[in-house]
Amino acid sequence: MVRNETISQRIERKIEGKQRVVAVARGDEKPDLVLKNATYLNMFSNEFLKADIAIAGGLIVGIGEYYADNEIDVEGKVICPGFIDAHIHLESSLVTPSEFAKAVVSHGTTTVITDPHEIANVMGIDGINYMLESTYNLPIDVHFMLPSCVPATPMDESGADLDYLIIDHLYEHPRVIGLAEMMNFEGVINGDEECLEKILGSQAHHLKIDGHAPGLSGNRLNAYISAGVYSDHECFDYDNALEKLRKGQFIMIREGTAAHNLEALAPLISVKYHSRCMFATDDKHPNDLLEKGHIDYIVNKAVEYGVNPLLAIKIATHEAARYFNLNNKGAIAPGYLADIVVLDKIEDFKVEKVFKKGKLVYSDGKVADFEVPEVAPKLIKHAHNTFNVKQVVAEDFKLGDAPVIGLTAGELLTTDCGRSDKIDVSKDILKVAVVERHKGTGHIGLSYINGYGMKEGAVATSISHDSHNIIAVGTNDEDIALAVNEIVKAKGGICVVKGGKVIGQVELAIAGLMSEEPLEVVNAKLEEAKAKAFELGVPEGIDPFMTLSFISLPVIPALRVTTTGVFDVNQWKYVK
Amino acid sequence: MVRNETISQRIERKIEGKQRVVAVARGDEKPDLVLKNATYLNMFSNEFLKADIAIAGGLIVGIGEYYADNEIDVEGKVICPGFIDAHIHLESSLVTPSEFAKAVVSHGTTTVITDPHEIANVMGIDGINYMLESTYNLPIDVHFMLPSCVPATPMDESGADLDYLIIDHLYEHPRVIGLAEMMNFEGVINGDEECLEKILGSQAHHLKIDGHAPGLSGNRLNAYISAGVYSDHECFDYDNALEKLRKGQFIMIREGTAAHNLEALAPLISVKYHSRCMFATDDKHPNDLLEKGHIDYIVNKAVEYGVNPLLAIKIATHEAARYFNLNNKGAIAPGYLADIVVLDKIEDFKVEKVFKKGKLVYSDGKVADFEVPEVAPKLIKHAHNTFNVKQVVAEDFKLGDAPVIGLTAGELLTTDCGRSDKIDVSKDILKVAVVERHKGTGHIGLSYINGYGMKEGAVATSISHDSHNIIAVGTNDEDIALAVNEIVKAKGGICVVKGGKVIGQVELAIAGLMSEEPLEVVNAKLEEAKAKAFELGVPEGIDPFMTLSFISLPVIPALRVTTTGVFDVNQWKYVK
Repeated sequence: MVRNETISQRIERKIEGKQRVVAVARGDEKPDLVLKNATYLNMFSNEFLKADIAIAGGLIVGIGEYYADNEIDVEGKVICPGFIDAHIHLESSLVTPSEFAKAVVSHGTTTVITDPHEIANVMGIDGINYMLESTYNLPIDVHFMLPSCVPATPMDESGADLDYLIIDHLYEHPRVIGLAEMMNFEGVINGDEECLEKILGSQAHHLKIDGHAPGLSGNRLNAYISAGVYSDHECFDYDNALEKLRKGQFIMIREGTAAHNLEALAPLISVKYHSRCMFATDDKHPNDLLEKGHIDYIVNKAVEYGVNPLLAIKIATHEAARYFNLNNKGAIAPGYLADIVVLDKIEDFKVEKVFKKGKLVYSDGKVADFEVPEVAPKLIKHAHNTFNVKQVVAEDFKLGDAPVIGLTAGELLTTDCGRSDKIDVSKDILKVAVVERHKGTGHIGLSYINGYGMKEGAVATSISHDSHNIIAVGTNDEDIALAVNEIVKAKGGICVVKGGKVIGQVELAIAGLMSEEPLEVVNAKLEEAKAKAFELGVPEGIDPFMTLSFISLPVIPALRVTTTGVFDVNQWKYVK
Repeated sequence: MVRNETISQRIERKIEGKQRVVAVARGDEKPDLVLKNATYLNMFSNEFLKADIAIAGGLIVGIGEYYADNEIDVEGKVICPGFIDAHIHLESSLVTPSEFAKAVVSHGTTTVITDPHEIANVMGIDGINYMLESTYNLPIDVHFMLPSCVPATPMDESGADLDYLIIDHLYEHPRVIGLAEMMNFEGVINGDEECLEKILGSQAHHLKIDGHAPGLSGNRLNAYISAGVYSDHECFDYDNALEKLRKGQFIMIREGTAAHNLEALAPLISVKYHSRCMFATDDKHPNDLLEKGHIDYIVNKAVEYGVNPLLAIKIATHEAARYFNLNNKGAIAPGYLADIVVLDKIEDFKVEKVFKKGKLVYSDGKVADFEVPEVAPKLIKHAHNTFNVKQVVAEDFKLGDAPVIGLTAGELLTTDCGRSDKIDVSKDILKVAVVERHKGTGHIGLSYINGYGMKEGAVATSISHDSHNIIAVGTNDEDIALAVNEIVKAKGGICVVKGGKVIGQVELAIAGLMSEEPLEVVNAKLEEAKAKAFELGVPEGIDPFMTLSFISLPVIPALRVTTTGVFDVNQWKYVK
C-alpha cells in the first residue's frame, strides 16, 4: 500500500485497473497479449490443457479463446508459471541483485525468496534496506525473509546485532514475508528467549518462519516445530526429510553450489508428498549460475532422477507459492500474475521465453533491458564503508605456539591437528588470521592451518560466514598483511598475493560481499584468482576461497578461528 | 492481539507459554494430556500413522512417545483433526450460536466459517457484532466472512445498506477472514463499482473472497475469477465444478438442508483434485442438525459414494484450513491446535470424543458445559427491537386484479400463472403479502399465489431472504393480518393461524431470525407448526415455511413479490 493512503484512496487508485481486467476477461476489451494455442500445466487439476491465455494489466485474465493485436503462437511449446527459489542468500552470487536477476530470469525464474543475512551481519538494518531497495521492480520479484541470527553466535564479532524489536518494523514492508532460517535450533529447543521472541515477532504479523536444522529428529524436532518453525532446507537424508514432512514441515529440497540434496530427496517428489515440497538453492556462485542455471536446472535434474516432470514443475512453482502465501503466483489461471515461462519441451527442456507480469523479459537468448533500481545515497555510502580496520603490518600476525586446524578436502568439517610454534611450508603448516573489520577493535585471531597446500604467498577474503571479517591464510606474515590491506583498500573482496605482489583479485566493494561489475566479469576474475591460488600450491580438490569462508564459523566442528581466538566447537570453548 | 498492546507486551505475554510448549515437546515437562497409541491421519504424508499425541497449552506439541498424568488410551480408534464447515449462515439453524455449537461439536465440528448476512440484512454492523460477540470462546471456533451483498438487490428494502467502507474496520477483527459469497456475480462481471470496491477492500487486507455463481462458465467465469473470487459453493454439476476448479476456484462441496450437491461432486474428491476441495453446508435447519449431523454426516456420505475415506476427511479438515490460511488447524502435528476428533472407525464412523484446544468438550454422548458468551446490552436491545411495523388490519391487504405467482414443488423457481382479481381457495389461488418491517415505511407488497394448497387460515414468517421482511400467505385477510401482528408481537418468528386463532408458532426474538430456546425445543415447535400448516392443506411435498422464505428474493425466476410490488426476474422489472 502506498504510504498514508486511506482505504478509499487505495481502492480509487485500483478500481479502473480492475474494471479493465474484468472487461478483457469477459471479452469486451482486447487483451494486451494472447498466447495462442498454449499447452499449459494446470496446477489445480494436475494435467496439461490447451487453450489461449489472455493477459491484461500484468495478469492472466482468461483461459479459453481470445484475440488481441499482440498474439504469440506457442503451439508445440509447454507453458508453465515462472520458477520460484524458496530460499537463497542473494549475496552469495557475488554480484548485485540486478546482475543476479539478469542471470536467473533467462532460466525462467521470476521469484526468489532471499534471506539477506550476509549483508545484515555487515550493515545491520541498512544492509536489509540496501537489498530491499536494490531489488525493487527487477524483472524478478524478490521477497524477503528477515535474518533471524545476526550475529550467528555469541562468539561472532559482526557488524550488527539484530534483536526482534529492531527488525519488527520491516515486517510491514510488502515484500517481507517472514523470518528466515532459524539456525539456532538449539536455542529454540531449549527455550532461549531471544530465539522465541523472534519467532513470536513473525507470528504476531501472521508471517512465516523458516527452519534450518540439519539432522534434527525425534522429540527435539517436535520442540523445534512446536515453537513455530514449518520448513527446513537442510535435509540431506530421505528418512529425516520424511520425518520432518510428516511432522508438518515443508521441505525445501536444496540443490545449490555448496549443497546437493536433490538426489537423496528426489523420491519425495511423489503424488503422496509433493504438496509439501519446493526447491531452493541457498547459494549460487557465479560460475554455477552461468554454467548450470537455476531452478530450471534442478527441475531437469529431478526428472533425470525419475521424478514426474509435472510434479517437478509443480513444486518449483505452485507449491512454493502456496507455502509463502503468494496467492497470485504459481499457476496459469485467471487473476494470477502473468509470470509465464515458455519451454521448448517438457523433459530436458530449455527456457525459450519468459514473461514477467505480462512483459516479455527474456527471449531468443536475450534479457530485455530494465532499469537498475536506485538505492538511497546513504545506503550506498554505508555499503562502501564497511571496513573499519587500520593498515596492518607483518608484526600484527606474530604468533608462537598455537593449535593447528586441519582442513578436510570436500568438507566443511575441520580436525584438530595438534599444535605448532611456526609456519612450516614443508609440513603444510600455514598461518591463518581473522581480522575484525567492523568496529575497529584491532582484534586479530591467529592460528595455524594444515591441508591448504599453499607453497608461497597468501590469500585473503572478506567473505567469511557469517560475520564477514577478513580471513587470510599465508606462508609469510608480509604477504598476509599485504593481502589484508589490499582487501581493505578495495573495500572488500578476494585477494591472492605472491612475494609482495597482488596476482589475483576480485573486488567486492558492496559491503565486502558483492561486486559492481557484471556477472561474467566477476566470474572471470574469480576463476583467474582461483587459478592463481592453485598455482601457489592449493590442491585442486579444495575451493581456495569457499573453504576459507567457513573457517571462522564457530558452529561447525572441530576447530574454528574467530577474531578473538581459536574455538573448539566440540568442547564449546576457546582454546589457547 | 489485545488492543493497544505493543509488540513487546504481546511477546512478553506469550513467551512463557511458548517456553512451556517447547519444554513439553522435548520431553522435559509433562504434557497436559497424552492420547496414547493413537492411529491418526497424517495430512502431509496421506497415510495413517501410529504414535502418542502429546498436548500442552491447547496445542499438539509432540508426536512420538510421551507420558502424562492424564493419559487416554485410544488404541483401536481413529484420530483426526476437528471438522471444518467452510461456509454456513449460522442464523439458518434458528438457534443461538451457543445452541448451534452444542449441536455440531458433538459431531466433531470444531470450526465453522459463517457469513452473517441474514442478521446483517436486519441489523447491519450491529448484527455482525452480535454474531461476533455471541460466538466468542465457544467450544467451536467461529470465523467470519463479511457479508458482500447487503441488501441483496436494489429492489430489496432491508434493514441496512453495507458498502465497503462501513465494513472495512471489521477486517481487523481476529476472527474475520474475508469477504463472503459475492452473490452479485453479474455486478462483478460487468465491472460494477460497488462490487469491485468490496473485493478490493478485502484484498487490501490480504483476505479471502468467497464466490457464489451457480452455473457460471466460460469467459464470464474468467471475468468473475480474475476480479479476485477464488471459491464457489454453488456447484451442482460436475463439469461446471471441474471448470471452476481448473480455473483456480476452490470448490466448496455443499451438502446442507436445502442444497444437496455431494452426490454430483463426490468424484472431485480424488487424488488429482481433492486439494482444491472442501465441504460446506450453507444452511442447516434444526431437524437436519438433530437427525443427520453436520460435516461428519457429509464425510460418511461421501465414503458411501465411493470416496476414499482419507481424502474425505482431508478435505473436511486440512484443505479447508489451508484455503482460509488457518495455519494451525487441520492436521495432527506439532504446533497445531489440539482440535481433535476420536472416531470409532474409519468408515461409517461415529464421533466418540472431541477435544477443542486440548480440552475434552464432547464425550460419551455429552457436550461439556461451557459459558455462554456475553453480548453487549446495546446489541441485545437492538436484536430484540427489529420490528418497526404498525399493527396491521385486514384492510391493509385489500387487493384487486394482480399477477399469480406459481410455486413449483421441490424447487425455488416460480412460474407466471396469469392473473386473478381475488382469493379463490377452490382454484388454490391465495393471497401473498410482504410487509416491510425495518423502517416503518408501511409498504406492503401484495399478489396472488398458486400451488401452496392451503384451504383455510394463514401462515407468516419473518425469515424471508435476504431482507427478512414479513411474508404471509393466507386464505383471508383477517387471518393474514393476525399472523403478521403475532409475529411483530413475538419480535419475530413463524406463525400459523386458523379462523382468528394462533395454532402454531415458533418465536424467533433475536432479529426475527433466531430463537432463545434450546435447539430441541425450537425443533419441536417448528415441526408442530409444520404439521399445523399441513393440516391447513399445504401439501407434504412443500416445506410450508422455507418455500415462503424465498418468495421475496428478486433474483430467482420467474415472479417474486417484494415490499414494493411484484417483480418479474426474467424481464428484470416490476409488473403491475
